Amino acid sequence: MPQLRIALAQVNATVGDLAGNASLIAAWTARAAADGAHVVVFPEMVLTGYPVEDLALRQSFASASRQALTELAARLDADGHGSVAAVVSYLDRDDVGPRDAVAVLYDGRVAATQFKHHLPNYGVFDERRLFKPGHTLDIVRLHGLEIGMVICEDIWQEGGPIAALGAAGVDLVVAPNASPYERHKDDQREPLVARRAAEAGAPLVYVNQVGGQDDLVFDGDSMVVSESGELLTRLPQFVEHLTVMDLDLPGGAPTLAGDLAGFAVRRVPLSDAPLAPYPARPLPDAFEPLSELEEMWRALTLGLCDYVRKNGFTSVVLGLSGGIDSAVTAALAVDALGASNVYGVSMPSVYSSDHSKSDAADLAERVGCHYQEQPIANMVEVFVSQLALTGLAEENVQARCRGVTLMALSNQHGHLVLATGNKTELAVGYSTIYGDAVGGFAPIKDVPKTLVWELARWRNEAAAARGETPPIPENSITKPPSAELRPGQMDADSLPDYDLLDRVLDDYIEGDRGYSDLVAAGFAPELIDRVLRMVDRAEYKRRQYPPGTKITFKAFGRDRRLPMTNAWREGK
Amino acid sequence: MPQLRIALAQVNATVGDLAGNASLIAAWTARAAADGAHVVVFPEMVLTGYPVEDLALRQSFASASRQALTELAARLDADGHGSVAAVVSYLDRDDVGPRDAVAVLYDGRVAATQFKHHLPNYGVFDERRLFKPGHTLDIVRLHGLEIGMVICEDIWQEGGPIAALGAAGVDLVVAPNASPYERHKDDQREPLVARRAAEAGAPLVYVNQVGGQDDLVFDGDSMVVSESGELLTRLPQFVEHLTVMDLDLPGGAPTLAGDLAGFAVRRVPLSDAPLAPYPARPLPDAFEPLSELEEMWRALTLGLCDYVRKNGFTSVVLGLSGGIDSAVTAALAVDALGASNVYGVSMPSVYSSDHSKSDAADLAERVGCHYQEQPIANMVEVFVSQLALTGLAEENVQARCRGVTLMALSNQHGHLVLATGNKTELAVGYSTIYGDAVGGFAPIKDVPKTLVWELARWRNEAAAARGETPPIPENSITKPPSAELRPGQMDADSLPDYDLLDRVLDDYIEGDRGYSDLVAAGFAPELIDRVLRMVDRAEYKRRQYPPGTKITFKAFGRDRRLPMTNAWREGK
Repeated sequence: MPQLRIALAQVNATVGDLAGNASLIAAWTARAAADGAHVVVFPEMVLTGYPVEDLALRQSFASASRQALTELAARLDADGHGSVAAVVSYLDRDDVGPRDAVAVLYDGRVAATQFKHHLPNYGVFDERRLFKPGHTLDIVRLHGLEIGMVICEDIWQEGGPIAALGAAGVDLVVAPNASPYERHKDDQREPLVARRAAEAGAPLVYVNQVGGQDDLVFDGDSMVVSESGELLTRLPQFVEHLTVMDLDLPGGAPTLAGDLAGFAVRRVPLSDAPLAPYPARPLPDAFEPLSELEEMWRALTLGLCDYVRKNGFTSVVLGLSGGIDSAVTAALAVDALGASNVYGVSMPSVYSSDHSKSDAADLAERVGCHYQEQPIANMVEVFVSQLALTGLAEENVQARCRGVTLMALSNQHGHLVLATGNKTELAVGYSTIYGDAVGGFAPIKDVPKTLVWELARWRNEAAAARGETPPIPENSITKPPSAELRPGQMDADSLPDYDLLDRVLDDYIEGDRGYSDLVAAGFAPELIDRVLRMVDRAEYKRRQYPPGTKITFKAFGRDRRLPMTNAWREGK
Repeated sequence: MPQLRIALAQVNATVGDLAGNASLIAAWTARAAADGAHVVVFPEMVLTGYPVEDLALRQSFASASRQALTELAARLDADGHGSVAAVVSYLDRDDVGPRDAVAVLYDGRVAATQFKHHLPNYGVFDERRLFKPGHTLDIVRLHGLEIGMVICEDIWQEGGPIAALGAAGVDLVVAPNASPYERHKDDQREPLVARRAAEAGAPLVYVNQVGGQDDLVFDGDSMVVSESGELLTRLPQFVEHLTVMDLDLPGGAPTLAGDLAGFAVRRVPLSDAPLAPYPARPLPDAFEPLSELEEMWRALTLGLCDYVRKNGFTSVVLGLSGGIDSAVTAALAVDALGASNVYGVSMPSVYSSDHSKSDAADLAERVGCHYQEQPIANMVEVFVSQLALTGLAEENVQARCRGVTLMALSNQHGHLVLATGNKTELAVGYSTIYGDAVGGFAPIKDVPKTLVWELARWRNEAAAARGETPPIPENSITKPPSAELRPGQMDADSLPDYDLLDRVLDDYIEGDRGYSDLVAAGFAPELIDRVLRMVDRAEYKRRQYPPGTKITFKAFGRDRRLPMTNAWREGK
């Protein structure tokens, strides 16, 4: 059977960095070529990075992307790799509008071009705002084999380009993707890719982006699946990776062109002669998917690392309260950036317990980060006495003096501030705007409180299993949570038990269930009332919170956009 | 010719307040009925308010909207107004998905229903995320006249429902709208409505929402245009208004049904017999559009008023620096809420000039708002000495101590904090996050600096023309702008001249022009470099800024959504 050596380049591009991304593509094409690859496939919009948001609408950006593509084709040829077909996705623009596009670069030129057909416009995606859909397919002939292309969402929808490729006839389908990580998502991908390979009647090469961008993190998890549904290889999650593999392809697919299943199909001959038979290597091992908790930890670490790095920061500063949220955030930061780039600050007030200081110091020692104590009593005292503050106003001033302290250290020393709030707090508005909500990034923003504890235990066990010091102090995990903004204050005074609260929130937010569904699920009506009222009132606070890596189905900000002025009360 | 008395109910609904909106509709239907109206037309999604954002996706909200509609139909009949055809738009949901819908309530029931066809998905609109398009048209027969319906965007696009109504035959078209205000937008509406009336071959009754919702403000500006393009009446801007008018309609339109121009057209008979001839009233006077500056002032006032009111606040607090931005913000707040609900705070630091205090006090006296002085020197001193702050870190701590002070007063006394930043500052990032950016609402967020001055002069002149005290101190208008965060600091040290800066920003942001276009427009390359670098770096700050009423084509947040991590540098 005709052979082909194909490279999957699972890379981490940066949004807007056309020159840097072009160099990345050139370097990985060279690596693929050095390993004898005939085709190299990059993720969706690798040249511009993804998602570009409204940059897609800027004429000057689209022009620059087109120009960078043409220059890249010439550069690959000049580097001696013109005979490697490089599948490079980019931002195009024509008379109809902006396009999410993919090109085949070959022999120094842009040999084939195709536009994404299915434009997702739900959840984190706004592609109908940004792009116009394509209705043409370019099938390239390389060494006598017919290679079709589809882009990301094109494989998530029934019909469309995959059906057209199946009708036209192809020997191989390549699919550049930018599919964000989300808990349990990898369970969906493999069967999906298998189904589309069967529909196309050809193996499908799925290459996904890796890396963090704003509040999204892409996990890679690229794969190749045969037309009979067999997983031929799978790439690792959360790291850049190049896999070069040999495929035996049947060849002899029909080569219909013209109007097929609603698409204008064009055949683009690059080279007709099949390759002389060569000794194929064994299939590369498929990487196993990570365990669920490790997968989330790695997602949070990579999202944090890339947000800091791609924004030009090298170090972070955060408040250490001795509690579980700041401990987990610090452990993530150390895993992401190294202990020498993490600055922890204990900021005790007159209401802080002794263990808040000792647990914070213990954490800092365990993870090896910088540590200082900055008591806030003097700052708070000036505000409270001058403005005659009492009650909630006095509580909030403490959180805000901490916020001002962290921002001052950031301005003075150039660290990015990390906010340490979790998803449960954000959901019910249990945080102080301009206080603990201060920061450039919020690593556990999308992690419910009960999952924060689970991750802490998992991380400690993973360390112990490697013979390392568990990073999170046991006391931070086991002690009852408290904001310590007034004497003896406990979270349990203001909030339902976290196990119960997270179950209501999961049903209401992730499950989008209404009041009557929640009653039917067995929750007490008073509890539902109380929780839903808190959630519905907190939208403004959530909007003002820093971004954080999305790991759930419905992350605040990205997936759930509610009015700030909203009189709707569920069940009332 | 057959007659009909029609009421345009230009009302201010509240998002999510189904019960309140139903009562509003019932009250205005009663007013219309008392004036003898046969039809009353309300704005788009009046029953739910508009825009509902992702509330549209909640099953329980859609069910509640449908139920509220049915109950409203019964209530109108029970009130004795069953024979008035009430055109009420609402959120519907069927097996296909959520729908932006309009119904005719008649005789105690939902007599006709139709779904919006053209779903805008650009600028401030995300309707393809939220709704599924409709492909059916219900034409009701009332007193022997055929009345067709279209919803908002359906008249902004060529073809579609208007063309189908023209083909089917109607005597009248009614169009509920939720069309947000934007500078110069009313210039577009009248010719558009006239063109669609001609295409439908019937007069068009255009009823637009009025009021603020989040960062949008709806200006009303409802109108009726004859099929020959004559403006028959126009309602005032920025206020609720009921116009009841008599129309002489030709009658005898063809009454085709079935598949027409891609729509399934259904005829819904309500009553066949024409009305006995009655003495028609003269046409009501058409309100003149406001002057451009008054229009903007009113938009900003209404947006601010409704944000405060609909969020359950009655009073606001803001910092008064003696500068033009806080002076204009205070004047807007007083016009919106009354002087007794506005609390001004002067917060001088050691670097504050004497005129900053005297101009602030002068402003407070002119507008009659509450006024207090809260020096921040003691608070700043604790942070600066304890944390050893210098340079920018010291400057920012001053702004942040002011932010903490305002939030403390808000928490203690229940006022909403207003941020006083203008669009130019936001564009270039000339503000302190968690400092002057603190607040629940930012009234002049979308007003460029040069326009702030223009509005101040206009407001003073308007006061003088009425024999009132001009609210803005002359010195606040004429003195050179300064942040006063270090000795002798002037905006001009950090920023280009505001006249020049606003012209570059207008071309870059509103005009979406790229680097080479700006060079071609004659701006110095160094200036373009400098301004664009500042704008591109400030996206994160802009995201954290409070919402404010949109009055321009490209308001930050709503219309221009850029990545926070973005390496793209225009022209580099």
